Amino acid sequence: MRDPAENAQLALLLEVAGTPKPGNVDRRREYDDLRFEHFLAGAVGSYRGLRTVACGEPIGTAFERAVAGMSEQSGGNTQFGALLVIAPLLKAAVDDRLTSDEVTETVAETTVEDACAFYRAFEHVDVAVDDPPDGLEELDVRRGRDAEETLRERGVTLYEVMERSADIDGVAAEWTSGFERSFEAASWLLADEGPIYRRASRAFLRLLADEPDTFIATRNGDATAEEATRRARAVLAGEEDAEELAEEFVARDINPGTTADITAGGLFIALEDGLVI
Amino acid sequence: MRDPAENAQLALLLEVAGTPKPGNVDRRREYDDLRFEHFLAGAVGSYRGLRTVACGEPIGTAFERAVAGMSEQSGGNTQFGALLVIAPLLKAAVDDRLTSDEVTETVAETTVEDACAFYRAFEHVDVAVDDPPDGLEELDVRRGRDAEETLRERGVTLYEVMERSADIDGVAAEWTSGFERSFEAASWLLADEGPIYRRASRAFLRLLADEPDTFIATRNGDATAEEATRRARAVLAGEEDAEELAEEFVARDINPGTTADITAGGLFIALEDGLVI
Repeated sequence: MRDPAENAQLALLLEVAGTPKPGNVDRRREYDDLRFEHFLAGAVGSYRGLRTVACGEPIGTAFERAVAGMSEQSGGNTQFGALLVIAPLLKAAVDDRLTSDEVTETVAETTVEDACAFYRAFEHVDVAVDDPPDGLEELDVRRGRDAEETLRERGVTLYEVMERSADIDGVAAEWTSGFERSFEAASWLLADEGPIYRRASRAFLRLLADEPDTFIATRNGDATAEEATRRARAVLAGEEDAEELAEEFVARDINPGTTADITAGGLFIALEDGLVI
Repeated sequence: MRDPAENAQLALLLEVAGTPKPGNVDRRREYDDLRFEHFLAGAVGSYRGLRTVACGEPIGTAFERAVAGMSEQSGGNTQFGALLVIAPLLKAAVDDRLTSDEVTETVAETTVEDACAFYRAFEHVDVAVDDPPDGLEELDVRRGRDAEETLRERGVTLYEVMERSADIDGVAAEWTSGFERSFEAASWLLADEGPIYRRASRAFLRLLADEPDTFIATRNGDATAEEATRRARAVLAGEEDAEELAEEFVARDINPGTTADITAGGLFIALEDGLVI
């Protein structure tokens, strides 16, 4: 039997293999500088951090180590967001508490030290993020360990860091909503049939159709994020072809990365709940 | 930096991602009952055995544990042969002795206990093998642990097991030839340029063009194995299209599995020797 950390690694691999996922790297598509193989290496490198969760390592330091290992490839940020979704789910799974209510307790228990480790993780890899709101420049995540003093002075926990960006970041919103969308995606994956790479594609499209992707919003603007959601709905309604949309979004560099991160979270939960590979 | 066991896991993943590899599961193709996702799960499960090599676990028991973990997916045998190529290479890498001459010493040092563990590995998964030669029925690998008594009585080491099948099994032939073809494939992969999934495809085709695949010979007969080699040569000569050949071979269930195993060995050596992902 795979243990939870192994399922976390497998979720990262099944996520990138899900095809078609319009705009994402998948089995059939990639960007010149962000390739399928970078995600494979990212999943391999992540595991050394993920497995420390089973030894009782706090979420923050486990996440930081996973990001450090993930970064040991030349493609840059492959799975930062996916690891941020999966880390608390993994912690809950290790404690045999993988329900929405209990993961809410798990993230509520994160500490200032978890927040410091989260900030340090940004030193390993460039992550596309928005500028912080006025007055919060000192807590810009891109400051990395330079923000630690401020975090400690103000007593900011990792959960509170997530609360502050939940309205502009879909991964943070998972933290503050009991990972509602990840659990929903897991239920779709489990109820679906056929090869997992197709199930992952369908779950991804449903998530994207439900809500605009915040990674697209950050990189390409709100209008493009809304367009992606509208066109995912068109695919689900049979009005657009998913493969053609995938080609177009890759050509336009419209990458629904947050939706992919939540798909990875859904895959992890589904694997823990008995999804057969 | 990835450690040798992580590079071994990554080699398994890069191998299956190599595309096109006519007849193999790859990013674009799979069999209904042997899918890309089974190889992903196989690579995840293998790692727990692979990493024991760094702790000094003998090749046989590390291999058996890797195969046990690999088998925890519903596709059956995904990477038995690849693990059999990689296990001694990994042992040599951990000991900082990853050269053809030194791997020859590594495999020469295998014991009767390694042979027993190798036989036990066949209990975890169905592997396509030929019937043993007359007089060697008691050492049929499919007997699993029932053969252990005979192995111990006759004092047969794992290296000697490989010697006995080197003329009909390309993986065993690697063991008895200093992993010559794996090292050669590594040199091609390192000298090549561009995305790794294309380099892996080209290395695979060159290996197949050089020698008939013994897995095809076992499953489809010698004539088909020779045809596969002839047609790989035609691809390299620009006379056949690799993608079309891949479609045809999958449709005809002609799977050059041994060539894939040696490609995985080449990828591992190349990663250890600095192949940048």
